[in-house]
Parts: sequence; C-alpha cells; structure tokens
Amino acid sequence: MSLLVQKYGGTSLATPERVGHVARRVVASADAGAQVCVVVSAMGAATDDLLSLAGGVSAAPPAADLDVLLATGEQASSALLSMAIRDLGRAAVPLTGAQAGIVTDARHGRARIAEVRPGQVRAALEAGAVAVVAGFQGVCAGGRLTTLGRGGSDTTAVALAAALGADRCEIYTDVEGVLSADPRVVPDARLLPAVAYEEMLELSASGARVLVGRSVEYARRHGVRLAVRSSFEDVPGTEVTAASEVLERPAISGIAHDTSEARVTVAGIPARPHAVAGLLRSVAEEAIDVDMIVQGAPVDGATDISFTVPEHDLLRAEAAVAPAAAAAGCRGVETDRGVGKVSVVGVGMSGHSGVAMRVFETLSEEGIDVELVSTSSIRISCLVRVGAVACAVRALHRAFGLG
Amino acid sequence: MSLLVQKYGGTSLATPERVGHVARRVVASADAGAQVCVVVSAMGAATDDLLSLAGGVSAAPPAADLDVLLATGEQASSALLSMAIRDLGRAAVPLTGAQAGIVTDARHGRARIAEVRPGQVRAALEAGAVAVVAGFQGVCAGGRLTTLGRGGSDTTAVALAAALGADRCEIYTDVEGVLSADPRVVPDARLLPAVAYEEMLELSASGARVLVGRSVEYARRHGVRLAVRSSFEDVPGTEVTAASEVLERPAISGIAHDTSEARVTVAGIPARPHAVAGLLRSVAEEAIDVDMIVQGAPVDGATDISFTVPEHDLLRAEAAVAPAAAAAGCRGVETDRGVGKVSVVGVGMSGHSGVAMRVFETLSEEGIDVELVSTSSIRISCLVRVGAVACAVRALHRAFGLG
Repeated sequence: MSLLVQKYGGTSLATPERVGHVARRVVASADAGAQVCVVVSAMGAATDDLLSLAGGVSAAPPAADLDVLLATGEQASSALLSMAIRDLGRAAVPLTGAQAGIVTDARHGRARIAEVRPGQVRAALEAGAVAVVAGFQGVCAGGRLTTLGRGGSDTTAVALAAALGADRCEIYTDVEGVLSADPRVVPDARLLPAVAYEEMLELSASGARVLVGRSVEYARRHGVRLAVRSSFEDVPGTEVTAASEVLERPAISGIAHDTSEARVTVAGIPARPHAVAGLLRSVAEEAIDVDMIVQGAPVDGATDISFTVPEHDLLRAEAAVAPAAAAAGCRGVETDRGVGKVSVVGVGMSGHSGVAMRVFETLSEEGIDVELVSTSSIRISCLVRVGAVACAVRALHRAFGLG
Repeated sequence: MSLLVQKYGGTSLATPERVGHVARRVVASADAGAQVCVVVSAMGAATDDLLSLAGGVSAAPPAADLDVLLATGEQASSALLSMAIRDLGRAAVPLTGAQAGIVTDARHGRARIAEVRPGQVRAALEAGAVAVVAGFQGVCAGGRLTTLGRGGSDTTAVALAAALGADRCEIYTDVEGVLSADPRVVPDARLLPAVAYEEMLELSASGARVLVGRSVEYARRHGVRLAVRSSFEDVPGTEVTAASEVLERPAISGIAHDTSEARVTVAGIPARPHAVAGLLRSVAEEAIDVDMIVQGAPVDGATDISFTVPEHDLLRAEAAVAPAAAAAGCRGVETDRGVGKVSVVGVGMSGHSGVAMRVFETLSEEGIDVELVSTSSIRISCLVRVGAVACAVRALHRAFGLG
C-alpha cells in the first residue's frame, strides 16, 4: 500500500466549501488505496486575524506567545478538514504538530525541525484513518510550542514524508505547478512536468514563490519525491526529484525574477586585508540576508563591492555598513531601490556552453543594461533596472525556447 | 509564598482592552507576592464563531474533531493574556490543557478529569513566571485532545488548585459573587460573603449560574478554598468553603430559580413491581437528566409519577417514555412546558424547623399553587407556574429576611 503526504495551503482551505473540496480529494486518494497523511495551513486570512488580535493586546508580542497564538490557526484547519473527511465516511484523526511528533529547536517564530517522532501519525494510518496534521508548528525540547516560519507547512509535510518513508509528498497550491516563468509576465509560460531539486532551489532563491527553498532542501537531503499540484484543478503538476531522474532535459528550465531586493554599493575600499569581509560582517551581524555579492577588480589600490539585500532591510543594512565603511576609509556608500533580478535556471546549463553568452546577447539586443551578475553552476542571475525586468524575462523566455 | 489559581471567563476576556485589564489584576496579585496560575476561557464569542465554522463544514461534526477545534479558543486566550502580562514586565508562560497536565477520560465534549500532572505549571511558577493555562481542555490517555463540557474552565481551575496545593482558587466572573437571589428578579438581592460547598452545590443545581456544580463538588472533595469575585470591580466576592467555616449562619442563604425545565407526568401506572423504575429507565437510557421526581400515593391500585427534565430534552423524553407507559398499561402521558422551579437553600435549614412551613405559607399568601415539591436536607424546591416564579422568588426573599 502506498503512503502519501499531501499538503494543502491556506488559499485551498479558505472557506467551508473549499475545505469540503479538499476533503473529497483526500478521500479520492484514500479510496484509490493509499494511506494518506494530510498537512494543513491556517484558513485563508486566519493568521492575519490572529496577528491583528495580538497587535490589539501588545505592541511587541513576544515570539513565544505569538507561536502559541498562531498555532491555533492550523489546529483549527486540521479539526475542520477532519470533520469534512469523516462526513464523507472516512475515518480521520486531527493532530497538532506536537502530537505528530514535530520536535524543533527553541527559536520561536522560525524554529528548525530537530527530530520527527511520527508515532501518533503512524498509529492513525495503520488504523485505516487519514491523519490530518496541523502544519507550521512543533514543540521544542522544553515542551513549549514553536512555529517554523515562512513556508513552514511545506517543511512539516516534507519532514513527515521523510520520517514516514512516504512514497510521495504532494504540495497542493493555487497554481498548476512550477512554470517556466511567472505567467503574469510571460503569458505563454509553460508548466514544467519535472524539475531537479537543485533547479527548484535556485528558482525559489531567484523569486519563484511556489515552494520555499528550505522545504526543497529538506526533500533533497532525505530523498523525498515532491510534487507540486493545483488543489483546484485535477492536473499532474510538477515533479521535483533528483536530477538523474529528469530525462531529456533542455539546457534551461525556467526564468525567475525578483523585484523585492535593493542594491548597496560601497565604493573606494582601500586594498587592506579583511576590509571587504569587515563590511559584510557588519551586515551579517544584523541578521540581514545578503544575496548577490560582486566585487570589482582593484583600481589604484582600491576596490568596489556591491551586494543585494531584501528591500525591507535596506535601511538597516545601510545603517550597519555606513559606519564600518567610514571607519575603513572607504569613499562612500550608495543604495539603489530601483533594481530587479532576472535569473536563468537549468541543470542542463552545466553541460551546454554558451548559455551565459546568449543571456548577455539577448539582454543587449533589448537594450537592457546588466548592473551585476552572479552565477552558480545551474543559474545565471542579472541585476537590471526594475522597469526592464518584465521585458528581460519575456526576451529570455523566448530566446531559450521555453514558450 | 502563597499560591493562587485565578480563573477568568470569556466575558472578562472579550476584547483586547479587557485582556489588558485582566493582565493588570494578575500582575497586581503577583506583585503582592503570590505565585499565580491563571486559567482562561475562550474570548467572548470565540466558541460560537468556531461552532459556526464547524457547522459550515459538517452537518454533524464528530465530537473528537469539535474538541480539537474548540480547544483553539482557550489556547488563543492563554497566548494573548501571556503577551499582555509580559507587556507589564512580568514573565508569563502560556500552556495548553495538555501541557498543564490535565489528563481526562476519552468522552469527547464532556470529558472528566482523571489525573493532573502539573509539572510544567510548577516549573513556570518556580521560575517566577505566571502560568497561563488554557481552560476547558485536556488530553486523554490515547493522546487525543478533549474538552470538559459546560463550566469546564472552572473545573480546570479547581483541579489545578487541588493538584498544586494552592491556597485559594479565585473564579473571576461578570457578577460580584454569589447573591441571595437573581438581582434581575430581586433588586435588593444581597452578596453572600460566604457559602458552604453544599449550599453552592444546591444553588447551582437549582438554577444559579455563577458556578457549575461539578467544579464545586471537585473543590469540596479536595478541600480547595474557592472564591467567586468580579473581574470588573475590586470587591471581595463570595468565599465557598466548608460549612464549619461559615460562621453565624442564618437558616437560609439564598433563593434560586430555574425556568429551563419542563414537567412530564405519567398517570394511572398499575401497581406492579418495577413499573415506575421501568418508566424512569426509558428516560435514563436516552441520557436525559431527570431533576425533580415525585410519586403520588397509590389510589385504586394505580399511581402517578411526575418528573422534570431540561426543556430542550422534553420531546426526546416524551418519545422515550410514551411507548414504555403504553406497554405498562398506564393511562397516559402528559407534558407541561409552563413550569418554573423556585428553591430555598441553606445549610442552617437542617437545624431550624419550620422552614418548609414558612415556604408554603408564603407562597399560599401570594396565591401561588405548588405543583411539585422536592427536598434535600438543605434545600426545598417547589414547582410553580412559570409566570409566578418571579413573584415567588421575591416573596420568599422577603419572608426569610434576605434583603
């Protein structure tokens, strides 16, 4: 008998009708002979409602208390979906994250899974019931409730799939699967039937919103077969799996873009040991994620460095780096919110020369200046003016024959 | 250092402002040097909102799933109150019923507490924090969440007070304490500074809404000193304690009334062994609570029996008793929704003769017919026309000098 883990997001559970629809999908999988463990997010706006309640009580709610409050959202979803499944004549057992054995560290609001002890899930499945687990939450060794942060329910699903030895982990969402580009920018974007873990990681890091990198990385490390599917339409979606299983690959899988970052440039850094490292450390100490980092070749004994940070962290990043730059005798610090990142991703890229050349050719033909470039073995990212992002995505999608 | 358990109901926590007000009361107790364990109900209408969500998903939500859903209400309250307490500079630890060690049987929706293992509560208190426990909920031996049914948060508070060896268990509510009668009926009803457990039990069973009998019985059995106080005004309220500690008692403590019951009468029951028992069994098998039971003396080899049941169970009770009555050869079954019960309660009653006489005299002077009477050693209850209830309560309140 196969064992499936299915995860349904908040949009898929936003109304009682949609809960009923999800219940029918779950029961169809069970009727087809699978053991099914479902992981659920909070209903539609439930989390926002809880946050606004917290805001009414405290100006700065402590993370530990917020975790206890937010965890009720997924718990309510698990109870409601369980009811709907039972209404269809199938046994179901709602479980909190703690009951499902999701043990985390104690970093409230962004806990990491330390261990999974799925005894209660297994018992429910072996009794012939559907296990309905509240996603996004766990319990730390001290016995306090925790939440896993952004994309937490996806991570719960993947972690349970790994611990249960599930045959597949299906992530149901409000899009059809992983597309070759954002369909709001590229109308003829194509559904990708399969992508490698590494591609999915690069796509997530480059702005694709469909899965957070963390859950993909967990799946890759534990060899969990992932599928991204629509909860509204019955179509196959995208398989996320090892590169070796993705046959007949084109060089490029997809084009991602991200307009949520901003650029910081420190100019005229004296060529002293650790000068650049010290500047980056000043930002890292503020726990700000730095994405692209490009250092120019030294000119007249000085160099420039540019990096991108989330736009909402730009002021904090500037405040951190400016004193460090002044102390190091740099010429100045400059920031720029008007940038966007366009990324070309594909595991086939490493075997095909000339991909970078074609990227530059294509952008140049469109008259788009590339301000920064960073690459990995399966990705090329270019920072361009934010106004040129959509044009760049469309041109690259066409140039690589993805339509 | 004294140890207090304080319970706050849903009305006391209905808005963020009220949560802040409760937090100030809790912190005041802690600042006065007590260890404080708080037990909370769901905010105002939260439970009704959750029930209506469940109704949207399932026509008959299974009790086990409903428990998981409803438990989120108290959990949210505990998180919010914890935030508000921390905002005032006091450490606080929110705990679910399961975390607080409330272990119950598996009767979902009306579970009974089997054991209390308050290790996490004690750890929080010993670390100098306020423990904020979600009331009304527990976990059964199988690891499933349960809820305790009506008045469940009061029972959680009393059970924790017993397990922790608390000095007092304070039930904060939207009234000043226990009154000598319902103030909506008797404008000069008086706050009772102290009542015995037994009186409180009789008052609760007779229609006083301030505490459910179950939590009072738990307190009596474990010797927990209870206090009922207003969460809005800073007044002493009512102590509920052993009869021996209630000094200088008048004969009567209070007058309670209840208009939520209906009467069933079975007439002409043949005088055969077990005939009456069989009729009552037919009702008991439907799990309907029977309150007053009065059997008339046999006349011509037949007898009558009358009993009261909750009005919302009347149709079910009639459906259960009618076939049994027909099979036993009774003359007929008659029901009456137009009744109300008036009860005179006081531990001093047993030492004072003439209380019953004064009850009948008083009602008779008002021209009120008594249809049924039932008594315990500290209570006399009379069933009268529902329209006469208010008049009866006022007359008895006056006659026993309670104003």
